[in-house]
Amino acid sequence: MRKRKAARERMLATKTIEKGLLIVHTGKGKGKSTAAFGLAARAIGNGMKVGVVQFVKGKWATGERTVLERFPDLITVRVMGEGFTWDTQDRQRDLTAARKAWEAAQEFLADPSYRLVVLDELNIVLRYDYLDLDAVLAGLAARDPGQHVVVTGRNAKPALIEMADLVTEMTEIKHPFRAGVKAQVGIEF
Amino acid sequence: MRKRKAARERMLATKTIEKGLLIVHTGKGKGKSTAAFGLAARAIGNGMKVGVVQFVKGKWATGERTVLERFPDLITVRVMGEGFTWDTQDRQRDLTAARKAWEAAQEFLADPSYRLVVLDELNIVLRYDYLDLDAVLAGLAARDPGQHVVVTGRNAKPALIEMADLVTEMTEIKHPFRAGVKAQVGIEF
Repeated sequence: MRKRKAARERMLATKTIEKGLLIVHTGKGKGKSTAAFGLAARAIGNGMKVGVVQFVKGKWATGERTVLERFPDLITVRVMGEGFTWDTQDRQRDLTAARKAWEAAQEFLADPSYRLVVLDELNIVLRYDYLDLDAVLAGLAARDPGQHVVVTGRNAKPALIEMADLVTEMTEIKHPFRAGVKAQVGIEF
Repeated sequence: MRKRKAARERMLATKTIEKGLLIVHTGKGKGKSTAAFGLAARAIGNGMKVGVVQFVKGKWATGERTVLERFPDLITVRVMGEGFTWDTQDRQRDLTAARKAWEAAQEFLADPSYRLVVLDELNIVLRYDYLDLDAVLAGLAARDPGQHVVVTGRNAKPALIEMADLVTEMTEIKHPFRAGVKAQVGIEF
């Protein structure tokens, strides 16, 4: 008992909480997915296992994949099915794709060996009601308490922001594509 | 001549400009350096050579370095000297360190084989007048027109924002450290 009390006192002395963070990158500016990719790369650099679900296909391109593929034992990337159209021409097909992606996300969330889970562009799927918000929040809440999650995408739902530990809004101040500059390999983000 | 005219017409038809972008990540929120790291990692993943100058020591830690070290022929990182104090106890020493870092930056800016140059936390150095703003802007303007540059740090100078092609402000909406949550390996950024 004395040992436990001493441990508890040491813990209180630090006045800190070790917990998995729910991080949201939202806003209309650039850098939401890029910063999430940066976090994923940093985590694998620290030897942490990372799971990534891309709710919108192709957001992370060749450059990201080349880097991440150097760490095949630490990173698993699941990309939403080819069939996802986003143009509501075939809403049923999109719903199926969104649910499949969320199933992949749930597998990561249920496996504490994944220390970081990136749910890239989940906010878009939630915004268009392809997934039930309450079910997603419940899935996030039920994860291992030490697991970090990053959710990206503009228009984050208020309830998700409420639940999050850290929320950053990326605001666009200036954007070159308005001035006719072409998207470029290696830099567009 | 006909050949050249045709080429010009093709170029005009695309209505795009291929140029190196000057990108600024500023604001008080998280993600400025992380998104720059993500851009650097994406660029090396695309086989582009990247030069990084860290004006504040230790901002990119073990995780980042482990990832970047897998691509030793593509990335060069120069970290500002140990002597940098930032507490104005020895302003002359800080000035010397800042100038040395800017010299490293100028080497990258003068070498078009570096397709992307990251000047991490340069804004802080400019804010405290450790470097002459006009000299820095001139150095950026004189670089190879195809070279991309990312400048990070809060309180970006208005003249730098004016010159930039793409500016993103990271705004803090919620931050866990205010709630006593400890900075954690692999996730703090």
